[in-house]
Amino acid sequence: MFIKSLGEFELIHRLKDLLPPSGPDVVVGIDDDAAAFTPGNDLSLLSVDAFVEGVHFDLRLISFRQLGWRLLAANLSDIAAMGGIPRLAVVAMALRGDLQVREVEALYRGMADLAERFDVAVVGGDTTKSPDRLFFSLAIFGDVARERLALRSGACAGDAVLVTGDLGRSRAGLRVLKSGKAQWLKRFDAAVSKYRTPVPRVEEARFLVERFPVHSMIDISDGLASEVHHLCQASTVGACITAEDIPIGLQTRQVAKLNQEEALQYALSGGEDFELLFTLPYDRSLEVAGALTDEFDLPCTVVGRIVAPDKGVKLRQGDKEVPLQATGFDHFKA
Amino acid sequence: MFIKSLGEFELIHRLKDLLPPSGPDVVVGIDDDAAAFTPGNDLSLLSVDAFVEGVHFDLRLISFRQLGWRLLAANLSDIAAMGGIPRLAVVAMALRGDLQVREVEALYRGMADLAERFDVAVVGGDTTKSPDRLFFSLAIFGDVARERLALRSGACAGDAVLVTGDLGRSRAGLRVLKSGKAQWLKRFDAAVSKYRTPVPRVEEARFLVERFPVHSMIDISDGLASEVHHLCQASTVGACITAEDIPIGLQTRQVAKLNQEEALQYALSGGEDFELLFTLPYDRSLEVAGALTDEFDLPCTVVGRIVAPDKGVKLRQGDKEVPLQATGFDHFKA
Repeated sequence: MFIKSLGEFELIHRLKDLLPPSGPDVVVGIDDDAAAFTPGNDLSLLSVDAFVEGVHFDLRLISFRQLGWRLLAANLSDIAAMGGIPRLAVVAMALRGDLQVREVEALYRGMADLAERFDVAVVGGDTTKSPDRLFFSLAIFGDVARERLALRSGACAGDAVLVTGDLGRSRAGLRVLKSGKAQWLKRFDAAVSKYRTPVPRVEEARFLVERFPVHSMIDISDGLASEVHHLCQASTVGACITAEDIPIGLQTRQVAKLNQEEALQYALSGGEDFELLFTLPYDRSLEVAGALTDEFDLPCTVVGRIVAPDKGVKLRQGDKEVPLQATGFDHFKA
Repeated sequence: MFIKSLGEFELIHRLKDLLPPSGPDVVVGIDDDAAAFTPGNDLSLLSVDAFVEGVHFDLRLISFRQLGWRLLAANLSDIAAMGGIPRLAVVAMALRGDLQVREVEALYRGMADLAERFDVAVVGGDTTKSPDRLFFSLAIFGDVARERLALRSGACAGDAVLVTGDLGRSRAGLRVLKSGKAQWLKRFDAAVSKYRTPVPRVEEARFLVERFPVHSMIDISDGLASEVHHLCQASTVGACITAEDIPIGLQTRQVAKLNQEEALQYALSGGEDFELLFTLPYDRSLEVAGALTDEFDLPCTVVGRIVAPDKGVKLRQGDKEVPLQATGFDHFKA
């Protein structure tokens, strides 16, 4: 059935039933002009992201259910990067009338899958029409104790620069999907699922800010190079990143090779890995990497050091140091 | 200058400078992964709206500055309808690369105009590309003391149904703009500004929930008929609205007449008046109407009564009672 046959209000009614019940902290959810809830910790967090068909996603490469997951994952990653606990999400959708009801339901199911995993309530939003291009926007509310808040701006010269997981895998997954080669999809399944259903590092970020003196943190949504620049700019510091130390997985290397591309470039400028980039005093860096691996079975790697601002932002490759180009995606210049 | 020449990050930098400085409750604004702020009252409020070019706005009928105002106004109205205080907004924009920098700046200025008036901090968002259709989404955070919270679901049989201001004026303004007649624009200036730069009833709603036993409240964004249905459905009650009592301004009547349309239909199904619809015990209704007029110089009118659910939702016209059709906009069926 088309959503235009069902109508806006009946559609909203159906979607509501797909969401996990919200906890006692939510006084009113999807049924009123706004959601009402108890705020929790002493600091509140708020973020919004937009997702445009043909720019952020292509429905030939991702299912509606995976897309729903991915939209929420990007938002959760923003809250994680602040050291926060995601609590509630609201979603705005501009939909074509000829979408199937089951397609929109699948999108909500994908959101519900991830929402349930992180105990996030999806509490409403706005459902409207687009004549052609699909648009989604998610806003997320979270909270954090003031002493746990992790900003981009706290990095100090001497800090170690660390990243969770491995980088460039999402880009590799996208390359596999765009190739259209069925055997690649199977062979590079880990890359493909990193692209389609990334798991935001919410628990890992909480663990970090609770146990370690994290000076600064940001999530990697635009590629390592761009995020290092954001962090250095906000903190008024420089950085030196060591190319050989950037963690790149086997599948990422293989996909890059098959495409005659540099795996390093996937890591530096491929976006949407949703890993964490953070800094803390160098003498704690081995300890934190070990703790994160022990607790979450997730690699955590020192990739460089924060230096004085006049040293700039550099990439060390072998014996050479070159300026690290902020090659992340610029939406308008791209 | 085109925004594609300026680039995403320089654009964001410029837009930031247009926003009023945020208060001490905002710990981090536009510069991090999420905004961080103190939550305020014991209940938090969150809402999101989407605005699609060609569906919600037409740049031939509204300037970028007016559009910025209008986007935020719609959001503020949602918080008002809960009896809340709007605090922070975040905005997601999908923009064409060939927009002028000054156009996007004007949009932000329009938001800043209204944000300043209501002491709302605009604390960031997401700026991204759309190949064609413009898309905006605003999310708003507000707060409210639990005992002030006004829901759709509290209406009781016997309540008076009241509305602020006059209805159908925004629709009349849109008709004037669509006519393209320059002399109409001047003659019906009040209708046109109601459409372009509506003032959300934030202060009026606060006044109401602080002084009076408001049982239920909703903002009129989809026309009176549709909102009465929403409220009755949420409260499991019926209602009887008296057509003659619905406040309709002179300009609205004149515009309807010139278009050979019914002014009553503008009020019942014309959206985006952003007035308040609320119910409270009948014996307080004259007092509340007087108080609101005294305080804000704003008409407030009893338009009907809440009745038992089995009586349904009716419109009384002269001696006749007919079912009140929920003629508000359905995005998919329309």
